[in-house]
Amino acid sequence: MAVYTKVSAEEIDDFLTRFDVGTLVSAKGIAEGVENSNYLIETTQDRFILTLYEKRVDPGDLPFFIAMLDHLAAKNCPVPPMIADRDGNTIQELSGKSACLIKFLPGISVTTPTPAQAEATGHALGYMHSGLKDFTGTRANSMNHDTWRKLAMDCGPDELDAIAPGLHKLVDSELDYLDAHWPDALPTSVIHADLFPDNVLMLDDHVTGLIDFYFSCTDIRAYDVAVTHAAWSFSDDGQTFDAAVSDALIRGYMESFNLGAEEQAALPILARGASLRFMLTRAYDWINTPADAMVTRKDPTAFLNRLKFYQGNPDIFKA
Amino acid sequence: MAVYTKVSAEEIDDFLTRFDVGTLVSAKGIAEGVENSNYLIETTQDRFILTLYEKRVDPGDLPFFIAMLDHLAAKNCPVPPMIADRDGNTIQELSGKSACLIKFLPGISVTTPTPAQAEATGHALGYMHSGLKDFTGTRANSMNHDTWRKLAMDCGPDELDAIAPGLHKLVDSELDYLDAHWPDALPTSVIHADLFPDNVLMLDDHVTGLIDFYFSCTDIRAYDVAVTHAAWSFSDDGQTFDAAVSDALIRGYMESFNLGAEEQAALPILARGASLRFMLTRAYDWINTPADAMVTRKDPTAFLNRLKFYQGNPDIFKA
Repeated sequence: MAVYTKVSAEEIDDFLTRFDVGTLVSAKGIAEGVENSNYLIETTQDRFILTLYEKRVDPGDLPFFIAMLDHLAAKNCPVPPMIADRDGNTIQELSGKSACLIKFLPGISVTTPTPAQAEATGHALGYMHSGLKDFTGTRANSMNHDTWRKLAMDCGPDELDAIAPGLHKLVDSELDYLDAHWPDALPTSVIHADLFPDNVLMLDDHVTGLIDFYFSCTDIRAYDVAVTHAAWSFSDDGQTFDAAVSDALIRGYMESFNLGAEEQAALPILARGASLRFMLTRAYDWINTPADAMVTRKDPTAFLNRLKFYQGNPDIFKA
Repeated sequence: MAVYTKVSAEEIDDFLTRFDVGTLVSAKGIAEGVENSNYLIETTQDRFILTLYEKRVDPGDLPFFIAMLDHLAAKNCPVPPMIADRDGNTIQELSGKSACLIKFLPGISVTTPTPAQAEATGHALGYMHSGLKDFTGTRANSMNHDTWRKLAMDCGPDELDAIAPGLHKLVDSELDYLDAHWPDALPTSVIHADLFPDNVLMLDDHVTGLIDFYFSCTDIRAYDVAVTHAAWSFSDDGQTFDAAVSDALIRGYMESFNLGAEEQAALPILARGASLRFMLTRAYDWINTPADAMVTRKDPTAFLNRLKFYQGNPDIFKA
């Protein structure tokens, strides 16, 4: 997390003349989000996030993300709308990168969620899923279940075993299990797919923002619940499961979205899949990122621990 | 420039309870300043910069910096005061680091200064020097003239020549010249010593903040003018001298500080020294920083170009 593309204050000031947002008062590069460059900007009128899209976001996907955020904002979901310029354009170019000016939302991202915060987040996720029921946009999930075996092969068996002894074999057998039992027939929807605590802004126990929609895609809707559950219900290293947070998250979700019995029954396998997905992408980055690079590598074993927990505790989702 | 020490929102929220500043509304890690970790913080009352001091700032120097900023703030210099907690303490500890909560100042740092902006900056520097006349604090300049020969040796002759052919010899002969002519008898003062454009906040042509005082020290006062001149009067790569900016900077300084004739006459050699100092520290970092490290290496030749310009143009400071 760093600022990859440096934009001068003069360039930002000039950029802002495309919009009706006042003139520049302050601009600070912020260390946030997936691998984009972000500036927190204050004008004489308001505050904004200026995002320049780096290699991980395909500019061709921006219209999908913008349509999704507009759809959700219209339904009073707390998402950050992208600002249109005087000609109605939201996708801009700046310093040779695709760029968007985005409304700033207050709120902080918690690191150790309380049950009340998890319940509010579950509720916000359910409300988002309700709001997306009539959203017609689609985007393939480039990290969906079908891609995990190739991802594991790209990591390499020896490299996986170097992360944790026996990991290669464990991954192989989990892939076999998931292939045999993956609930492909469950309802699909556009989902967030990455609703970790850093992508939720809160004030006290109230959600003020769902952010960083750049992994949003079409997939099994209940998989989004499973991803969020895996992201929220454990200590960072995945070694400690917090049953109160887990229960609160699911309770909050159920309050705002009516999860079907089949979807609920599938949560254990979906959570195993979510854990494997984040374990594999982290392992791939771990193997392919120099230890001293600008990007902080995230420990894959944090999600190996979650996977093992879900394997051994299929009953935690039962009411 | 990155966030080296990650502090959770919960830790920041808890930290703020030491002060009368309201409760946390937003916290963003910002990429700014020398190698400290900085957070832009919004509370229910105001905005602040939270700085955690990393290896380049000695916590033992913090009382000097705080006294200097308090002294300048009392004289209406636009510097960011550090906030005292309920017990009157400004130096805090957070995540094992020394930390200060600092008032947020609006304004942007220009990249390509106009003459009007340079004049305002010169004026602010002179006003700061006036304000420091009765400041009794002192701090040795760890990068003063006496240290440059050792710094050059630490770089190594071959390594210098790898940066630019013949650089080792040029540095040696410049060191000899400076040793023979350095104006040690000129008035000394506490100086900023690093007033580059990124350390000046402006709105239009008005200085709203002088920041990043962590190189401040006691040295020849006119040397501060020379550093600022070298930092402001050239294109970033040092290849293009801007006479209008140069003249405006000196004019602005003279408006608020009465530079003596001897000081003025010494500006050419002081500017050569300033150029050599930044060339050598950049060269040292260049040689000792891996190309893919988190810190962006700055090109030493940008100050080699300035040095050559000052060598060839001693008359630019004449009125």
